[in-house]
Amino acid sequence: MPATTNRQVVLRRRPVGLPRPDDFELVESPAPAPGDGEALVRTIYLSLDPYMRGRISGARSYAQPVEPGQVIVGGTVGQVVESRVPGLAPGTFVQGQAGWQSYAVLPGASLRPLDPAQAPISTALGVLGMPGLTAYVGLLDIGRPQPGETVVVSAASGAVGSVVGQIAKIKGARVVGIAGARDKCDHVVRELGFDECVSHRAADLAGELAAACPRGIDVDFENVGGAVLDAVMPLLNRGARIPLCGLIAEYNATAPTPGPNLRPLLFNRVRLQGFIVSDHLDRMGDFLRDCSGWLREGRLRYREDIVEGLPRAPEAFIGLLQGQNFGKLLVRVSEDPTR
Amino acid sequence: MPATTNRQVVLRRRPVGLPRPDDFELVESPAPAPGDGEALVRTIYLSLDPYMRGRISGARSYAQPVEPGQVIVGGTVGQVVESRVPGLAPGTFVQGQAGWQSYAVLPGASLRPLDPAQAPISTALGVLGMPGLTAYVGLLDIGRPQPGETVVVSAASGAVGSVVGQIAKIKGARVVGIAGARDKCDHVVRELGFDECVSHRAADLAGELAAACPRGIDVDFENVGGAVLDAVMPLLNRGARIPLCGLIAEYNATAPTPGPNLRPLLFNRVRLQGFIVSDHLDRMGDFLRDCSGWLREGRLRYREDIVEGLPRAPEAFIGLLQGQNFGKLLVRVSEDPTR
Repeated sequence: MPATTNRQVVLRRRPVGLPRPDDFELVESPAPAPGDGEALVRTIYLSLDPYMRGRISGARSYAQPVEPGQVIVGGTVGQVVESRVPGLAPGTFVQGQAGWQSYAVLPGASLRPLDPAQAPISTALGVLGMPGLTAYVGLLDIGRPQPGETVVVSAASGAVGSVVGQIAKIKGARVVGIAGARDKCDHVVRELGFDECVSHRAADLAGELAAACPRGIDVDFENVGGAVLDAVMPLLNRGARIPLCGLIAEYNATAPTPGPNLRPLLFNRVRLQGFIVSDHLDRMGDFLRDCSGWLREGRLRYREDIVEGLPRAPEAFIGLLQGQNFGKLLVRVSEDPTR
Repeated sequence: MPATTNRQVVLRRRPVGLPRPDDFELVESPAPAPGDGEALVRTIYLSLDPYMRGRISGARSYAQPVEPGQVIVGGTVGQVVESRVPGLAPGTFVQGQAGWQSYAVLPGASLRPLDPAQAPISTALGVLGMPGLTAYVGLLDIGRPQPGETVVVSAASGAVGSVVGQIAKIKGARVVGIAGARDKCDHVVRELGFDECVSHRAADLAGELAAACPRGIDVDFENVGGAVLDAVMPLLNRGARIPLCGLIAEYNATAPTPGPNLRPLLFNRVRLQGFIVSDHLDRMGDFLRDCSGWLREGRLRYREDIVEGLPRAPEAFIGLLQGQNFGKLLVRVSEDPTR
């Protein structure tokens, strides 16, 4: 049979500030063949996530950077085309790390088989994937909300924030989201059951957040940083916890960001704990058990923002960094036969 | 007998920025008489500490502010002149909270008797007092240094920092101090046994600190904030701990301080824990047992900077906020009969 064409998005050069479309390049080559213990996987969904901004910069971070000329890394859901992995049949849906490409050869041990009868396969990149685990661990193990406490979550309609807020509600907390566009705020209140949501575009963000948190803030699940964190800081209660998960407001900064005043952290005995979800993979079993149950019971909802076709990945990623997506951002790289 | 004259330093008005001498006022009145369960105490030593800057401002903090016209609060060591407390004889040396005045009537329950044969009575305000407890709890319970780890402590020659560094050495850590004047740096290395000390006045503080910490920083005992914390942040190792004890660089700020970039806290899973020593008084017994022993064994040293006479308290306090003191700053309010 003729060799299948593999389309790849590679890093053309390191972005300065907000990435531009021509920092990326779409290239084609024949799809590779799997060796022993490997499988050729056709990508169906590519997950786009803010952490990728760090990987394509050369800055010191928690993972190896992507070098110019390399395929950009990313989590994917796909279907096995050809398998040299014992027990892994062609046609199986799998979650893996194919990156920004339409085909990849991956080690069998790195693939997690998915059952489309249990949940839509795309959820393995969102509410039942790394974003969901991030929310679960950060909120429950670091934030530790108690019933009646006030939990604030920024990027509230995003892949992580939407799960954080819903789990916090399940645990009995008062939940206030922070999001951008009005329809995102409406969504998290009306569809996800948050108590309130404040727009970070509000002229008086600090005042609106204070009004939404009359008893102060006990847990701030921080995804954004910058002006959003500035508004949170004066409202922190004694003993508040901040799971520091992301700082998307700063990822494109070309100069050091003037940061928040740390005094409230001191006065209020705040514990600020940076965390990276990959340190907490031992919680995967607990997470899948709880969140799958909540999903089946309809207590946990999710929203996806699906972009069609790998060539649109750079543009969608740039939009993500500006908050233009609404829900877990996925690229449909090829047809999803399950829906 | 004729009424004894009590000299008091009261707050004349709230300082804006660095306090000025005329924000304070020295007043005189007859010393009060003790009621049942109270004692009249002659102040010998008044402790001056950076936290007092917060108390004389009106800003939200962890304690009630001093109002204009009130005597400024402060820890003191004195001698009982007249006692209506059962079991507390006149002549007893006591630690208490008389504030900036030469005599005070204090409840017997608030007084801790001191034995001059055990340690100089002034140490109850320094190495064996609140500053020592602050160092002990913050370093051991929050910083948790392991043998071979690198501990950085700012305000290294100060009342808290000097104890932090010495306990960290006792626990087997590599200790790097940050101080201002050259003679302070020399002192903490030569007299207190720190491994290195960097001056925060160095033209290239970041570079000098990096050179002094070739294996990065595992614990940053933070007393200063501002540019000092900026220099620490990029050097933090994964899983570093920051006991956030003070932010003296910011206490006189009249506008929000541009703070440090929080990204290294995220990437390195840093736990930042604001703490106030008064939450940890349950550790007082452990602290006194360990530090008294280390003091007797000569493993723990201290330095005092004693200013003569209550009228000099405002000027000495203003100097403290600028780092002009060298060692635990005390005001000798009256004669110390034990030395």
